[in-house]
Amino acid sequence: MQRRKFLQYAGISAFTGAGLASCKGDEKADSNSHQAKTEAFKTLQWKMVTTWPKNFPGLGTGAEFLAKQINEMSNGRIHVTVYGAGELVPAFEIFDAVSNGSAQMGHGSAYYWKGKNPALQFFSTTPFGMTAMEMNAWLYHGGGMELWQEAYKQFGLVPAAAGNTNVQMAGWFNKEINTLEDLKGLKMRIPGLGGEVLKRAGGTPVNLPGGELFTSLQSGAIDATEWVGPYNDLAFGFHKIAKYYYYPGWHEPGTTLECFINQKAFEELPADLQAIVITACRVANQDMALEYIARNNDALDTLINEHNVDVRKLPDDVIKKLATLSKEVTAELGFTDPLARKIYDSYSDFFNKSRAWLDISERAYLNLRTG
Amino acid sequence: MQRRKFLQYAGISAFTGAGLASCKGDEKADSNSHQAKTEAFKTLQWKMVTTWPKNFPGLGTGAEFLAKQINEMSNGRIHVTVYGAGELVPAFEIFDAVSNGSAQMGHGSAYYWKGKNPALQFFSTTPFGMTAMEMNAWLYHGGGMELWQEAYKQFGLVPAAAGNTNVQMAGWFNKEINTLEDLKGLKMRIPGLGGEVLKRAGGTPVNLPGGELFTSLQSGAIDATEWVGPYNDLAFGFHKIAKYYYYPGWHEPGTTLECFINQKAFEELPADLQAIVITACRVANQDMALEYIARNNDALDTLINEHNVDVRKLPDDVIKKLATLSKEVTAELGFTDPLARKIYDSYSDFFNKSRAWLDISERAYLNLRTG
Repeated sequence: MQRRKFLQYAGISAFTGAGLASCKGDEKADSNSHQAKTEAFKTLQWKMVTTWPKNFPGLGTGAEFLAKQINEMSNGRIHVTVYGAGELVPAFEIFDAVSNGSAQMGHGSAYYWKGKNPALQFFSTTPFGMTAMEMNAWLYHGGGMELWQEAYKQFGLVPAAAGNTNVQMAGWFNKEINTLEDLKGLKMRIPGLGGEVLKRAGGTPVNLPGGELFTSLQSGAIDATEWVGPYNDLAFGFHKIAKYYYYPGWHEPGTTLECFINQKAFEELPADLQAIVITACRVANQDMALEYIARNNDALDTLINEHNVDVRKLPDDVIKKLATLSKEVTAELGFTDPLARKIYDSYSDFFNKSRAWLDISERAYLNLRTG
Repeated sequence: MQRRKFLQYAGISAFTGAGLASCKGDEKADSNSHQAKTEAFKTLQWKMVTTWPKNFPGLGTGAEFLAKQINEMSNGRIHVTVYGAGELVPAFEIFDAVSNGSAQMGHGSAYYWKGKNPALQFFSTTPFGMTAMEMNAWLYHGGGMELWQEAYKQFGLVPAAAGNTNVQMAGWFNKEINTLEDLKGLKMRIPGLGGEVLKRAGGTPVNLPGGELFTSLQSGAIDATEWVGPYNDLAFGFHKIAKYYYYPGWHEPGTTLECFINQKAFEELPADLQAIVITACRVANQDMALEYIARNNDALDTLINEHNVDVRKLPDDVIKKLATLSKEVTAELGFTDPLARKIYDSYSDFFNKSRAWLDISERAYLNLRTG
């Protein structure tokens, strides 16, 4: 876009009123005219780079939702444009791109940056860890956000939770899982900490991009794959080639998506726009989780009633073993450095108490209403 | 409060400012000075009347949080002041006060207005009904909000969800509940649909304001009372006078608090301020639920480990009976009028599917991690 045109556009949406607006430009023109107002106020054009394909259901659309919230509430004083993975920078380079100011915002998930510090995975999800509601309670009312801010500050970034998948499914399997023995040698696409747990249980975790999962499962290159849940899984068509759909997901019990903001760009905002950006992230955080529930409801119904999918529960002793290994793998993250130790301790302390409370509230209620 | 005084207060808020700020006033002053800016842009003074005592923990502080969000994001273009119950109007007159424009916003819960239509209770909570996450998914992604809007439109109100207590506790009892027989004649403070269910189970529901519960329980005027959960219950000191603390709450599994806005006042806002008000409600909705988790975690810990509270689970056959009666009582709400029927059908349809999905995700996960 040409610069002249840019300023024209910028002007139109920039009028704000309070605080920010100066009326200086108005002397030459009728102060009431639209033209006068549009010339007086400039717009911030912000780029949001993401780790998702543009408009990928749930995750990519969640990033679009966030941008829309900021654009609307700021009356266009900030105009955020969302870029899919690879459009401006490759998916896994967005952290550095926003850190060095090439873009102002990034939308991804903290476990992608475990190379910076393995304990960052606590800000996404850990096997047998907190659910979405616990994660958010820890972040906003349990000291979690302050630690996340401390962790990202050294990279010149301001973090925010900006979405959640809720509990993911254990995945699609072409081999029955009846005993621990069935995990031995199991070739399964499962990245991150879940993959490490599977490895310690004797399996062979592999990491493949989403686009290769269908053919890999079809060809037998892998025996199983996790993805997200009914909504995203139905769209990928796994039910056409996999025998069993296992639950519950133990490896990603409430994956938090994030939005990080270039700290300098954030600090240059006036207080009301800072509040708008942070609040927009909080609403996006909630909205994605809610959309996933509604879409998963329908998709599960379709998978079971139209496609006759064989939904199976992982056996208790398998779960027990995975739980023990998960605790082991997660605890190791705390030994990385002093910050990792602080994150681990804070997370664990909150989790111990929230588990006790949810046991007699959310969990007890969900059990009793089902009977 | 006298009517004249009331109208004086109301007058402050008359300026609506849509459009919004004009720079006209600046000709006489240096347009860059703070003075010039503050004169150029007027502020909407909005009143939020509530059903809670001012700053009541969780509920009243949630209303304050909402006001603060609006004030900050709008840079004071809207300035919301919160009034506790009785400060401007009595608690149960806030609906009419906002409807007739005496105040711009109200903070309460929809079941208080069941006199207008019993089906409004679906927008708060119903016995054995949806949890907070399901309620919000229904509201924002399942058609629930559109029905709520339809229901409130006839009163000139725009509704928004603005808080949630999550699953409440069954309450404090001075009689053991071992069988269905123990409900017979039980004098329990439990209002609304839960009270109706208890009545059909042979109990004697009574309704008392929060401030009278402690002494009523102490004197034996009542055998039991429900309130909210560990955080609010600890503050009331019920553990000092009640023998047993029962779980899980079956009568209020995810009580939604609301903010309703005078429709005319809302429609006069420019689009960005409308977005700010609605988004602020959504964040307040989420924040209260998260705060309750964090505070309940700590309070439960205190109740058990410092006060040795006897926490007990309601017996399965009692729960089963209450579930059956709850279904009966809830279904009756759908027969009020055509709108009630639509609300009941939409709620039930969503709930059937969400229950199926949560059974293999949230519920299955919470069970397996506890082992």
